[in-house]
Amino acid sequence: MTQDNRASVGVVQARSLTLEQALELDCGESLGPITVAYETYGRLRGRGDNAVLICHALSGSAHAAGFHGELGHSPGWWEDAIGPGKAFDTDKYFIICSNVLGGCSGTTGPASLNPATGKPFGIAFPVVTIGDMVQVQRALLAALGLDHLLAVAGGSLGGMQALEWALRYPGFAKSALVIASTPRLSAQSIAFNAVGRNSILSDEHFAGGDYYGKEIPATGLAIARMIGHITYLSDEAMHAKFGRALKGRGEFSYGFGQEFSVETYLDHQGSKFVERFDANSYLLMTKAMDYFDAAQSWGSGSLAQALQRVAARVLVLSFSSDWLFPPYQSLELVDALLSCHKDVTYLQVESQAGHDAFLLEVDAVAAILGRFLAATARKEGA
Amino acid sequence: MTQDNRASVGVVQARSLTLEQALELDCGESLGPITVAYETYGRLRGRGDNAVLICHALSGSAHAAGFHGELGHSPGWWEDAIGPGKAFDTDKYFIICSNVLGGCSGTTGPASLNPATGKPFGIAFPVVTIGDMVQVQRALLAALGLDHLLAVAGGSLGGMQALEWALRYPGFAKSALVIASTPRLSAQSIAFNAVGRNSILSDEHFAGGDYYGKEIPATGLAIARMIGHITYLSDEAMHAKFGRALKGRGEFSYGFGQEFSVETYLDHQGSKFVERFDANSYLLMTKAMDYFDAAQSWGSGSLAQALQRVAARVLVLSFSSDWLFPPYQSLELVDALLSCHKDVTYLQVESQAGHDAFLLEVDAVAAILGRFLAATARKEGA
Repeated sequence: MTQDNRASVGVVQARSLTLEQALELDCGESLGPITVAYETYGRLRGRGDNAVLICHALSGSAHAAGFHGELGHSPGWWEDAIGPGKAFDTDKYFIICSNVLGGCSGTTGPASLNPATGKPFGIAFPVVTIGDMVQVQRALLAALGLDHLLAVAGGSLGGMQALEWALRYPGFAKSALVIASTPRLSAQSIAFNAVGRNSILSDEHFAGGDYYGKEIPATGLAIARMIGHITYLSDEAMHAKFGRALKGRGEFSYGFGQEFSVETYLDHQGSKFVERFDANSYLLMTKAMDYFDAAQSWGSGSLAQALQRVAARVLVLSFSSDWLFPPYQSLELVDALLSCHKDVTYLQVESQAGHDAFLLEVDAVAAILGRFLAATARKEGA
Repeated sequence: MTQDNRASVGVVQARSLTLEQALELDCGESLGPITVAYETYGRLRGRGDNAVLICHALSGSAHAAGFHGELGHSPGWWEDAIGPGKAFDTDKYFIICSNVLGGCSGTTGPASLNPATGKPFGIAFPVVTIGDMVQVQRALLAALGLDHLLAVAGGSLGGMQALEWALRYPGFAKSALVIASTPRLSAQSIAFNAVGRNSILSDEHFAGGDYYGKEIPATGLAIARMIGHITYLSDEAMHAKFGRALKGRGEFSYGFGQEFSVETYLDHQGSKFVERFDANSYLLMTKAMDYFDAAQSWGSGSLAQALQRVAARVLVLSFSSDWLFPPYQSLELVDALLSCHKDVTYLQVESQAGHDAFLLEVDAVAAILGRFLAATARKEGA
């Protein structure tokens, strides 16, 4: 996975910017000022001719590439995909990534101070939608002086944002790269999200979301993350990685401690996550995913009708063993785009890595991502 | 699903019997006396010529058919499959079903009084295996005067018991019906079980398993059940049943209450389960499933070697959309049985119902179950 033979963007700066103007959210509330954490890599040409907006997934942040502090420390979450000579080639493109609204990595979210009370918003933070996240990104770009994009790209929750961009601001981004994503979640995925939220909401330390500076709902959040992790991996990947291996001496303990390697792994993932993620943001991110429905929001329930508005070229990528955002959902999107004569390219990548493939199988898709961006740039005469 | 045109066994009696002799369990502990809750339907011939032992799944009980108290009340969990003219035809066969060791429906389990302390066992109850459950069933049959069986049958955890019967007591049951089951769980299924247990163990009311007569770990158990329920249904079934339907007025609440129909359903399943199931038994049942590994226990890791011991005719049934006990696992079992020239019949049933198909799609498999039993009886000259 590490791309030792290719350079990194190196040490990068975490930036932020405050949008003073309040924004009208989908829920009807107005919110502002809004601080947005972002990073950029590469050099901008024009007012966006070579600009690519990267949208992160549930647990991501604005730190998509390079290192914080010093080389080798805290690599960006998509370090394999962004850099000189990589899929998102920083020798050619100006890359922007920002933390989503409602997140917990620098952008205004539930842990931010509510100007009305002087205390953290907590659960009073408005329930944000994918549309709201995109609206904030649009305002950030305006503040940075960009009035168009070569591309908007993202995987999972990030892919929902890329698709929403193509629907909400047609023409702004010349292309949208929708990776391991969907125009709407299935009942099964909504169900997994609901159980995760339930686990957080019923944690004894959740305290109605007002836990800042006190004990946090660590157990509930860890369990939500464990459920998530199972859905990010495939059955095959878990079999290959853990099988039925036991951690200790290879004998059953006849107790209820962690015993199989897969249990230790999940426990570790849960504990790590709790250190870096806010439970209230987890509630918000999963709810935004549940609510996202491109057909409902833009086509009165018809995906084909919704997609009439799309002006961007669209690249759709799915991964064969992804059962959280299964390929059939990408195919529905592609089919609906074709039915309204849109410019769409679709690739289903064979992979055992499940939903996580969009983070792990960058090498397999680097060439097509690179060519798609180059072709878009050529077409736009950039 | 309901078999209006076929009769039921009618009102049935819950029975129980106490095995005074202590049993040596797989964990090394000895346990006794053991009370076993059981029911029987139909009339016995000989010392087991027409006797069929039914093994229940995680949340089942000895009450497999008929009604308790009065007609129409509390149907057995496999009412569709057991009765006059049904798959397990009570005009022909003598059916026995008992609650498993460690359960919470009448058989000795964690809520039973520990003779050593005079208080409920709680978490001090030994961690039981599928082998232990089968050992208790064997002792029950002996106490009832049976020294052989025409068949042993079960779905899911019950199918593990049926397979264990064929391995532990070869020759006792003339046939084994292994339905929607597996010779060993995958890492993915172990992971789901582990998260469910985690949720129970970290419930503030779990109190080290010593919650009898106090507030019970209802939230933890409900969340475990919700996770379970998602895995019992298929993506297709959930889509068909719920899709993205909202419960209320069809508008988003922008809050964290139950909102999608699938959330209401899961919440209901969680609450119902908590009323009838003991969290300590849930821990035990899932652990027994995790530990079950026919290859490891009987063949030093080789399934084919393990199955050399089998003397029973085996029927293996899997369901196409079952992703918890996926068809490929049944096929591994069939393949290994064939490799050692055993008498095996395999059917993969096309169904959208997921793992729950073994409870819901009885009509689709009634004919083959009936014919397999009849053929076994004919072969045995019964």
